[in-house]
Amino acid sequence: MFETVQKRATAFERDGLAVRRLVASCSSLLSERGEAAGVSLAKVTLDLYRELDRRDQARFLAALLAEFSPDPVQVLAASEAYAAEQSAANLLRLSTVAEPPRQELLRRLNRAPNGTATILHMRERLLELKMERPEFEAIDADFRHLLSSWFNPGFLQMVRVDWRSPAYLLEHIIEHEAVHEIRGWEDLRRRLQADRRCFAFFHPALPDEPLIFVEVALADHMADRVERLLDVQAAAGDPARATTAVFYSISNCQPGLRGVSLGNFLIKNVLEVLSHEFPRLKAFCTLSPVPAFTAWLAPLLKADMGDRSDPFALALKAVAAQLGTDIVKLAVDADNARARLPALNEPLTSLCATYLLRPASGADSAADPVQRFHLNNGAKLERINWLADGSKKALRESLGLMVNYLYEPQAIEANHEKFVRGEIVASRRVRALVLDAM
Amino acid sequence: MFETVQKRATAFERDGLAVRRLVASCSSLLSERGEAAGVSLAKVTLDLYRELDRRDQARFLAALLAEFSPDPVQVLAASEAYAAEQSAANLLRLSTVAEPPRQELLRRLNRAPNGTATILHMRERLLELKMERPEFEAIDADFRHLLSSWFNPGFLQMVRVDWRSPAYLLEHIIEHEAVHEIRGWEDLRRRLQADRRCFAFFHPALPDEPLIFVEVALADHMADRVERLLDVQAAAGDPARATTAVFYSISNCQPGLRGVSLGNFLIKNVLEVLSHEFPRLKAFCTLSPVPAFTAWLAPLLKADMGDRSDPFALALKAVAAQLGTDIVKLAVDADNARARLPALNEPLTSLCATYLLRPASGADSAADPVQRFHLNNGAKLERINWLADGSKKALRESLGLMVNYLYEPQAIEANHEKFVRGEIVASRRVRALVLDAM
Amino acid sequence: MFETVQKRATAFERDGLAVRRLVASCSSLLSERGEAAGVSLAKVTLDLYRELDRRDQARFLAALLAEFSPDPVQVLAASEAYAAEQSAANLLRLSTVAEPPRQELLRRLNRAPNGTATILHMRERLLELKMERPEFEAIDADFRHLLSSWFNPGFLQMVRVDWRSPAYLLEHIIEHEAVHEIRGWEDLRRRLQADRRCFAFFHPALPDEPLIFVEVALADHMADRVERLLDVQAAAGDPARATTAVFYSISNCQPGLRGVSLGNFLIKNVLEVLSHEFPRLKAFCTLSPVPAFTAWLAPLLKADMGDRSDPFALALKAVAAQLGTDIVKLAVDADNARARLPALNEPLTSLCATYLLRPASGADSAADPVQRFHLNNGAKLERINWLADGSKKALRESLGLMVNYLYEPQAIEANHEKFVRGEIVASRRVRALVLDAM
Amino acid sequence: MFETVQKRATAFERDGLAVRRLVASCSSLLSERGEAAGVSLAKVTLDLYRELDRRDQARFLAALLAEFSPDPVQVLAASEAYAAEQSAANLLRLSTVAEPPRQELLRRLNRAPNGTATILHMRERLLELKMERPEFEAIDADFRHLLSSWFNPGFLQMVRVDWRSPAYLLEHIIEHEAVHEIRGWEDLRRRLQADRRCFAFFHPALPDEPLIFVEVALADHMADRVERLLDVQAAAGDPARATTAVFYSISNCQPGLRGVSLGNFLIKNVLEVLSHEFPRLKAFCTLSPVPAFTAWLAPLLKADMGDRSDPFALALKAVAAQLGTDIVKLAVDADNARARLPALNEPLTSLCATYLLRPASGADSAADPVQRFHLNNGAKLERINWLADGSKKALRESLGLMVNYLYEPQAIEANHEKFVRGEIVASRRVRALVLDAM
Repeated sequence: MFETVQKRATAFERDGLAVRRLVASCSSLLSERGEAAGVSLAKVTLDLYRELDRRDQARFLAALLAEFSPDPVQVLAASEAYAAEQSAANLLRLSTVAEPPRQELLRRLNRAPNGTATILHMRERLLELKMERPEFEAIDADFRHLLSSWFNPGFLQMVRVDWRSPAYLLEHIIEHEAVHEIRGWEDLRRRLQADRRCFAFFHPALPDEPLIFVEVALADHMADRVERLLDVQAAAGDPARATTAVFYSISNCQPGLRGVSLGNFLIKNVLEVLSHEFPRLKAFCTLSPVPAFTAWLAPLLKADMGDRSDPFALALKAVAAQLGTDIVKLAVDADNARARLPALNEPLTSLCATYLLRPASGADSAADPVQRFHLNNGAKLERINWLADGSKKALRESLGLMVNYLYEPQAIEANHEKFVRGEIVASRRVRALVLDAM
Repeated sequence: MFETVQKRATAFERDGLAVRRLVASCSSLLSERGEAAGVSLAKVTLDLYRELDRRDQARFLAALLAEFSPDPVQVLAASEAYAAEQSAANLLRLSTVAEPPRQELLRRLNRAPNGTATILHMRERLLELKMERPEFEAIDADFRHLLSSWFNPGFLQMVRVDWRSPAYLLEHIIEHEAVHEIRGWEDLRRRLQADRRCFAFFHPALPDEPLIFVEVALADHMADRVERLLDVQAAAGDPARATTAVFYSISNCQPGLRGVSLGNFLIKNVLEVLSHEFPRLKAFCTLSPVPAFTAWLAPLLKADMGDRSDPFALALKAVAAQLGTDIVKLAVDADNARARLPALNEPLTSLCATYLLRPASGADSAADPVQRFHLNNGAKLERINWLADGSKKALRESLGLMVNYLYEPQAIEANHEKFVRGEIVASRRVRALVLDAM
Repeated sequence: MFETVQKRATAFERDGLAVRRLVASCSSLLSERGEAAGVSLAKVTLDLYRELDRRDQARFLAALLAEFSPDPVQVLAASEAYAAEQSAANLLRLSTVAEPPRQELLRRLNRAPNGTATILHMRERLLELKMERPEFEAIDADFRHLLSSWFNPGFLQMVRVDWRSPAYLLEHIIEHEAVHEIRGWEDLRRRLQADRRCFAFFHPALPDEPLIFVEVALADHMADRVERLLDVQAAAGDPARATTAVFYSISNCQPGLRGVSLGNFLIKNVLEVLSHEFPRLKAFCTLSPVPAFTAWLAPLLKADMGDRSDPFALALKAVAAQLGTDIVKLAVDADNARARLPALNEPLTSLCATYLLRPASGADSAADPVQRFHLNNGAKLERINWLADGSKKALRESLGLMVNYLYEPQAIEANHEKFVRGEIVASRRVRALVLDAM
Repeated sequence: MFETVQKRATAFERDGLAVRRLVASCSSLLSERGEAAGVSLAKVTLDLYRELDRRDQARFLAALLAEFSPDPVQVLAASEAYAAEQSAANLLRLSTVAEPPRQELLRRLNRAPNGTATILHMRERLLELKMERPEFEAIDADFRHLLSSWFNPGFLQMVRVDWRSPAYLLEHIIEHEAVHEIRGWEDLRRRLQADRRCFAFFHPALPDEPLIFVEVALADHMADRVERLLDVQAAAGDPARATTAVFYSISNCQPGLRGVSLGNFLIKNVLEVLSHEFPRLKAFCTLSPVPAFTAWLAPLLKADMGDRSDPFALALKAVAAQLGTDIVKLAVDADNARARLPALNEPLTSLCATYLLRPASGADSAADPVQRFHLNNGAKLERINWLADGSKKALRESLGLMVNYLYEPQAIEANHEKFVRGEIVASRRVRALVLDAM
């Protein structure tokens, strides 16, 4: 038995060795020696991290939590001194001891070539682990804090992506498109023709990798069906005649940047650029999915409505009569679903309006992330589009419904403030659809 | 009398109005509304700052101190909670309240186009004011903290400057050369020929402005006279045959970046690049000024040495005999000085060695900043050069003496550690020159 | 009846009007007025050409022949004067009147934006027409003459094509690959990986269109099967270890440049570039098709060999026994063909050697254009590869055989001279395969 | 004596050896072998030329005349055949034998790297020699012919030169400015500010050397004094408000391109570019020197006018009274000249108009080359400016007078035609100044 324990210990030592070596390198990097070594010690340290397996990565992140947090005794002493006297020296001391040392560690790691890329990979791993170990939020806050500072929109470069872009970049676009899958190079080609625009943000430390990109169609009306937008055969329109810019897809390429504001800035940048290039553009809208509508609707359909005859209950009954009460599997037989849906235009559109405009509550589990994103950006919920996306994914998520959010430059700030105060900014037309319940 | 007071008050209000408006805009930018407005509110706020006169700039910086510092009550409460329990939530709360809000303010200002440039101008003003108002150190710490993070070497681009560089960049180089003035385009041209190299750091947010640059001569020996290096007529040597890279000038271009480590990284980067391009290079050294030697020597010459006959006293007497005891004005009559100096090779070189190798003390007012910079970077004091620079400036500062600091890649880290521990790393040759005093 | 004739005449006039207007514009461009108008008249003239339908294009080219040829009377007078006295003035006069005026016309057209592209389109049409109207050779000689001067290798830029190249350029590559069809972007991607190279020539007047490109594999042996080279799944080798560069495809992109030497220069340029980048490369060879082997073999198989027992006849009989005498349709049932071929290694390889090494005759209708191209460039016929290409096209053209031509830099000039004198330069191995006939 | 002759012969042989080797290399390059060798033989041949001293260069050019001219016997035979029958074959044969073989030689030399640059140097030498050896015109015609074809405006790239241009390019501009000397970088800087434009033509075979450049001022009136344009201290105007583009300098950089039309195309290109960028521009004019006015006027002043009282004679008398009859040396004492000139506004301006508008005659030795250039380009002589240039050069050439030539886009072709027919196109104002003689 003793032997077994010893074996385990050895195994543990061996396993832990790589992590201990990395942690020691981190400590050294944080010391005076690290300052002098310049970039070389940062390189060595990052190399040690890159060699870790996934289990050791988790151990290392745990060590970041355990060994690179502020010292509570020092923090308390500094706080008391600062409370007693708000001198520059006391404030400096407080700032120094209250900031987790891992922040300075990450800043020094970031000096090495490809440091930023490795730090993003670290955070990707951290985000995975955080789901099971909520205490890692303390580390993640430091990553998020630094990444927000480094990926400041002032440091980003907006690049137009088109058919003159290098192939490796286009390959990234194909791979990371998350809203409407790009089915090969022909599909991509159509999305880059004269009546389309695609813009991406780049950071100088990751020159070959887009951070986020948005796809826009220049059209003469607010799009209501995604199939038309994605039709590879459709002839390209004349962008000079376009009156409406339809933002139909926005996708992040860097999982390690989750929670760092990029989309907001990208949309507003593109809005400005397009306004200049095409003075005839009058409207900027999205054609957006409603990813959680079915999830909200499904339990309601199963609920017993008894003999309720309020508009909300009637709509639910109409839907249940046509589709049954189990709509979760509807998309499995997509053709059948597409055949049965057309009759439900009115009740489903109204239910969707009711869903999107219901009073928000802080921890609303059915909250629509796309809606939150655009309303928080200052957009308005403008229109709900019936039979707007016939793909399986859309049938599953929203029974094919899609939404236009409208960005009106002069209303953006006011809309955002309303949203922050809890109001859902929506057009009269959408508000009129909301169904009263008893 | 009342009227006068009222007038003053109005004037003050009027004067203060621009500052108050700017501070209000800053508060707004820090709020939720600011987050939504994206870049536009940051733009507006920066524009308000740019319109301030110098007096109002000072007022605004004072407001940053008074109104955007951490709240001591909140900090103390968060520290106590964290001392009691080191949970993620408590740490997050602590980090949030202990960080001065002006840091987030600067980060948001930085989102605007040219935000970084304006922040650098703010800090330039701040550095001026700090000389008279030491409490501004509290604000400056925040600027320095953020700028160090943003101007991380991982984000900088090193660019070779040569005769193919755009004229506006070369104009920057001419303007900012701080060690050996560039006297026009012909002088610059010589410094960019085949046996020379010039490298600059750029940051993506300031694409047209170099941050710092270094000038290097590729030679077959360790340079001992700056005139030869700067001779516009000298034929260019063959860089492929060079054995020695002489870093003869390093200059900062951005006063707002004072205290942000750049030179250290630039020198090491250049060292690496040159090693690759020219495998025959064996030595990397500087030819550096000794800016405070005269300042150290002058009072000693005036001191009464009585009948002391120790080497140190004898050297001082020899110098005084030749130059008199008032050497501060020596450079005024430069020709005369140049005529009298040659006889003093031995005593002056020895005195300089004694000066540079005297035991360091923390607050050494005569400390040599150039020496500190290179030794802290891990260089070694290699050689003292007699009659190395005949310019008025050099006569005034160091009686024409210059120093070679040597960068030996494999010794850099160890040298730095010795320096940090208080040791002056110097060659045997230089150490042998030190004069014993009684 | 008269009416009909008149109608026809009118139609003819109407039809011919566009051509007459264009010819008039050409005459004007050749006059003094054209010189002054600079580029504008050239633009107008080219626009007139671009509007012609195919029939009118033919008419215009006929007009170039009829109206822009040298005047025989003037030529004769100038020749006689020059024969009498070889003065500068007489020579000048001779040069002026002997050069077809359409050359100057084309030079002036070429001044307009996109002039070169339109001239290439003109020649494309001309090459079509020349097949039926041999007199157009007189015009074509002028086009060829000018294009050779303009597309001088000294004016061409060689560009490496890789995965960083713009998508539109890669699309051109996919479209114009003429030897081994590129089946989509994945196929192309493999051809641009680390162990491959692709180089194209560009001309500054056609910045977006490659003129010709070559594909090279870096390998450790002389390739003998094209399938391996084209295997999309094959892992990329380490180019630094390669000993052999295999040129496996060369394709022209501009039909209007037929007959203008480009491939020769491209191959030699690439050879030089690769030698510098990879000093370990020892051999430069091709893996080339034998496009006319089947065409040469088919009638021989049908011929009556009687009881001949010479090696040549025996080989033919062996082939006929296995494949039948009608091999032209063999590729129609490719699987069947692939099953029956393996037994014929010896006789078919020998017959192919016999085919390639048979005495050349000026108007050899079965001459192999690929062989001529490489031998004329100074290559050597090095090896014949059995079952080297299983594609239908290769089965049809050469029963799957391919050839390696070897470029030995030091032998190129001598090889070319031998080829010009009528010798087929081939390795001993290939020469040993040749079959004696009675 | 015999010995001496032998010595001479040897010396001659030795001297001539380098030339003979070069000529042999040229013959080889023209042969079949040259075609195969590709670029390598062209390289070798050009290297041989580059090693020649100036005397051997002359010998080589003589050899080009003697050995690479068309064969009169062959030319005559081909002409007779073509006169008898205008077949394609006969025409081809004629073209082949009538074109001097040195043209094909130059085309093949041009294939080598830097071939074009060396050919331009050859021509530079040729132009020198031609002044004494008129028979070299026969070779020069071939150079001119090829260079005109290669430096076709369709192949040139127009580049804007500004303060972002590389220093080496700006140095070329300083060096080659031929009209108004650029006195250092400060002077150049002013010429590149916001209210100025500078454009240059480049050829892809000479990527680092401008061929020709033009300097333009954007102003609100037609400039009448060059000092104002060249004032380094003058504040830059707002180009968006400019109504007039003043072309105040055009300079060639490549002596080897003399006689190849470039300026004409450059001016018209710039005219088009500026029209697009600044739609408010209404007039495009020059401010040009009158380089031969003094040369024309001087003998007239010395002529005996007797008691003539026609306006022409009276003007001459008035000038002679004020300046004396020997005006050639006037500029030697420039201050004095500047003092005496102001009184002569009327007679001198009128004499200048008379000079510029006098009937042209083919071999007019006093013809003004600047006038010819602009009128041939389709400009109009718009205005004569009194005291427009006070530099010594201008006093010497034209007594300080300058001229505006006006480019009216819609009149350019008609103006050129008039000029070709012998008419001097001038404004009514200028024509009214012409003085009648008896």
